[in-house]
Amino acid sequence: MSRLRCRIAISLDGFVAGPNQSLENPIGEGGLRLHDWAFPTKWFQSLHGNASGGGETGVDDDVLRESFQNVGATIMGRNMFGPERGPWGPDAWKGWWGDNPPFHHAVFVLTHHARASVPMQGGTTFHFVTDGIESALAQARAAAGGQDVAVGGASTVRQYLAAGLLDELELNVVPLLLGRGERIFAGIDSTQATFELVRSLGGRGVSHLKYRVTKPAAQ
Amino acid sequence: MSRLRCRIAISLDGFVAGPNQSLENPIGEGGLRLHDWAFPTKWFQSLHGNASGGGETGVDDDVLRESFQNVGATIMGRNMFGPERGPWGPDAWKGWWGDNPPFHHAVFVLTHHARASVPMQGGTTFHFVTDGIESALAQARAAAGGQDVAVGGASTVRQYLAAGLLDELELNVVPLLLGRGERIFAGIDSTQATFELVRSLGGRGVSHLKYRVTKPAAQ
Repeated sequence: MSRLRCRIAISLDGFVAGPNQSLENPIGEGGLRLHDWAFPTKWFQSLHGNASGGGETGVDDDVLRESFQNVGATIMGRNMFGPERGPWGPDAWKGWWGDNPPFHHAVFVLTHHARASVPMQGGTTFHFVTDGIESALAQARAAAGGQDVAVGGASTVRQYLAAGLLDELELNVVPLLLGRGERIFAGIDSTQATFELVRSLGGRGVSHLKYRVTKPAAQ
Repeated sequence: MSRLRCRIAISLDGFVAGPNQSLENPIGEGGLRLHDWAFPTKWFQSLHGNASGGGETGVDDDVLRESFQNVGATIMGRNMFGPERGPWGPDAWKGWWGDNPPFHHAVFVLTHHARASVPMQGGTTFHFVTDGIESALAQARAAAGGQDVAVGGASTVRQYLAAGLLDELELNVVPLLLGRGERIFAGIDSTQATFELVRSLGGRGVSHLKYRVTKPAAQ
């Protein structure tokens, strides 16, 4: 069965992005610190052009690698894709990830701004979906060909969670306090979803908690 | 060195107590669910009078047991101690824990209501401290005789954390959403403390994340 999966880094005080987010800084002030643990990993290094085989192995690397396994399509929010309407002209922005993005499959960007699909090097194609999260999921499932679908971006994940459509949630708990910012669970009806711990791993200072998300039988 | 330690259960959305807390219900509506994992453990059963040796062993039991080891005194907030001024008359309330509380050492209750110490069975004595958290810590350290001091109660823990006095924090991350309630980190200056992961364990549905709390060298 194709599952909808999310892996997201979260601070000890529950923020997945810092304050004052903008299209130019979608993870907010200080939010980059949530991802410091990922940068030295072998997987991250290889995704971003370090072909020499460098980078750290271990739990953090395993977890990051796992989050890309059996994923056939990705859904992301507009903020995660980036500042489409910057000074570079209409429909010129092609995401944050360079000419050869690390997805290598179809990526569906939730937006209010219709736009032709953008094929990139390495198998990634950005598609722009203007008719909502359920449409994006249906298109992503079709594109994934039986594999899972990954979803990213705090508010997008929250929408799927609130709609009862998320199947798996992995939190990378980073031991720092952001104080302010965006919460992943804010405004979610607490009766909507239940979580079953699949595994709990300790990496280099970061804990990786993976949950199966289930809905109450009555719904 | 005597350390100040806290172990506290926290929901996936970051609450350590439910909404509408009162002296009669200090863990708030739904807050008891944060502790469901602890009740079946062998350690909890033995603390609360099940002398037959029943209860579950394993990671959750180990973690709970560990949180009592090498602890020579406890500090708690007024809410955790209970409704001192209920219908039972002045100075009659002796805590939630019966005649033989599970502490078996000196317990310092932070309150604004001065009261004579209350010796209980089994070595527990409740002392009432009206001159603040630093005084309570000094008294607890003296009573602990070189062992560690445990602290409990959300707002009390937060005060010690904010003052840079907490040395160890263990979060038992419980996979449920409370939606509303009391947060352990609300209003803490994010530059005040840093956290170093000591260990990360997975129990029966609950993750146990233990941190060493350190202050920046400049402070």
